[in-house]
Amino acid sequence: MSDDILEKAQASITRAPYHQWLGLKVIAVHDDGIELTATWREEWVVNPERRYTHGGILAALVDLAADWAMFKKLGRPVPTIDLRVDYHAAAMPGDITAKGKVVRQGGQFSCAEAYLYGKDGKLLASGRGTYFTAPPPPPKG
Amino acid sequence: MSDDILEKAQASITRAPYHQWLGLKVIAVHDDGIELTATWREEWVVNPERRYTHGGILAALVDLAADWAMFKKLGRPVPTIDLRVDYHAAAMPGDITAKGKVVRQGGQFSCAEAYLYGKDGKLLASGRGTYFTAPPPPPKG
Amino acid sequence: MSDDILEKAQASITRAPYHQWLGLKVIAVHDDGIELTATWREEWVVNPERRYTHGGILAALVDLAADWAMFKKLGRPVPTIDLRVDYHAAAMPGDITAKGKVVRQGGQFSCAEAYLYGKDGKLLASGRGTYFTAPPPPPKG
Amino acid sequence: MSDDILEKAQASITRAPYHQWLGLKVIAVHDDGIELTATWREEWVVNPERRYTHGGILAALVDLAADWAMFKKLGRPVPTIDLRVDYHAAAMPGDITAKGKVVRQGGQFSCAEAYLYGKDGKLLASGRGTYFTAPPPPPKG
Repeated sequence: MSDDILEKAQASITRAPYHQWLGLKVIAVHDDGIELTATWREEWVVNPERRYTHGGILAALVDLAADWAMFKKLGRPVPTIDLRVDYHAAAMPGDITAKGKVVRQGGQFSCAEAYLYGKDGKLLASGRGTYFTAPPPPPKG
Repeated sequence: MSDDILEKAQASITRAPYHQWLGLKVIAVHDDGIELTATWREEWVVNPERRYTHGGILAALVDLAADWAMFKKLGRPVPTIDLRVDYHAAAMPGDITAKGKVVRQGGQFSCAEAYLYGKDGKLLASGRGTYFTAPPPPPKG
Repeated sequence: MSDDILEKAQASITRAPYHQWLGLKVIAVHDDGIELTATWREEWVVNPERRYTHGGILAALVDLAADWAMFKKLGRPVPTIDLRVDYHAAAMPGDITAKGKVVRQGGQFSCAEAYLYGKDGKLLASGRGTYFTAPPPPPKG
Repeated sequence: MSDDILEKAQASITRAPYHQWLGLKVIAVHDDGIELTATWREEWVVNPERRYTHGGILAALVDLAADWAMFKKLGRPVPTIDLRVDYHAAAMPGDITAKGKVVRQGGQFSCAEAYLYGKDGKLLASGRGTYFTAPPPPPKG
């Protein structure tokens, strides 16, 4: 059963070309959260000497982990209204684990947060987004 | 003179692998701002049917345009402390123009904002970041 | 005509006990913005020696100026979904001018920003909010 | 011992006229957090019919609970650089409990968050701030 939702989330996530580029793997899907990893790649680097990852990559991971934290409840990703990210430490080369969690699920819009960790478990960044969770309009026809 | 600062900004920006991947071109450098374009690529897409760009790409562009808005004053990029992005419209395939502007330049930290526009001039996203602008420590030796 | 909307905004604002406590006066109402002043009071002080105003007062002013920036379009205040405030300088005793402006007006939610200035014109704080601007449900009957 | 830090925090908080106006009572001080209550007053009301509290009051409570969450570590309040608040439910008349917690303590700046609850335990708002936690300059003399 829980494998089922995990496979469903993985399949849905993998459909996006950007998610493929980020090398996203779903580790666990909870009632109000998700855990996934992103696979490091050379193109993430912003500083060629110190080799750390661009904050925009971290922002994308915060956004998507917070968004997909609602997947078990909603069964689909939802539009991001706004996003806030706090940067805590330089993200050195290596895969990144993202843990998303719902803060408040609402009928019209919802708030979810995410924390990002490096290979050594170090907290790299965290943040939260506001998501548009009104039911989608019925299909025309 | 102004060509000089533009070339210097372009060279500094292009050093980052992630900036190369984003296809960044500096259009103008102002005393308190910058204008640049990012070159659309297939990997930006999040929704394979509707084909719009992932919000994480837009977040990266808001972050870097706000950061590089301080380039003429500081001569270098600075660490992002935190970032906020508001999403205004779906970003359809096509290059994106980013305009960054300083809100308040400070000795320890500064605030800068950025607006993103699509090919047709439509406002796609905007936001602001807090940047760590304390002078870098003197080299040891 | 424009006096009319100004009086209407002032009357609507003054209905709120908290707005009365803040001593809000509407200076101008624009198509996509508003300008108002708040009257300093001793209870705003957070630091009894240095005498500057608590950031929560500034947050309230950013929120309400951004919200009422949409008054000419909507004819009513709207619920705040989320709020972001950047603090630029200590707000010393004295009235504060708040200028609100719409960033993007939407059918379901909108983004508006505000800038706060001290007596001497110094920028004290700025920020933006996301507002719930869906039409109110029809009255039951 | 722990009563000692609680009394110290209460005394330090009560020094601020704005904190007195908010009727703040410190309930508990943790290594990386704080819990306090604010005493409802009529002037908080923004909507005279529905009687809920202005979002600016909630923003102030998020800010101060996040700031004072660092009190046990720092022994003093610190300047807020920026603040983000998400509004989850209308805050009806009644005292509000605020729980602040450190997200990341840093040498130059830190991130802390806070959650606000109504009398019935309902989550009203939450948010986070960036704080300037560099050591204060040595006194001149």
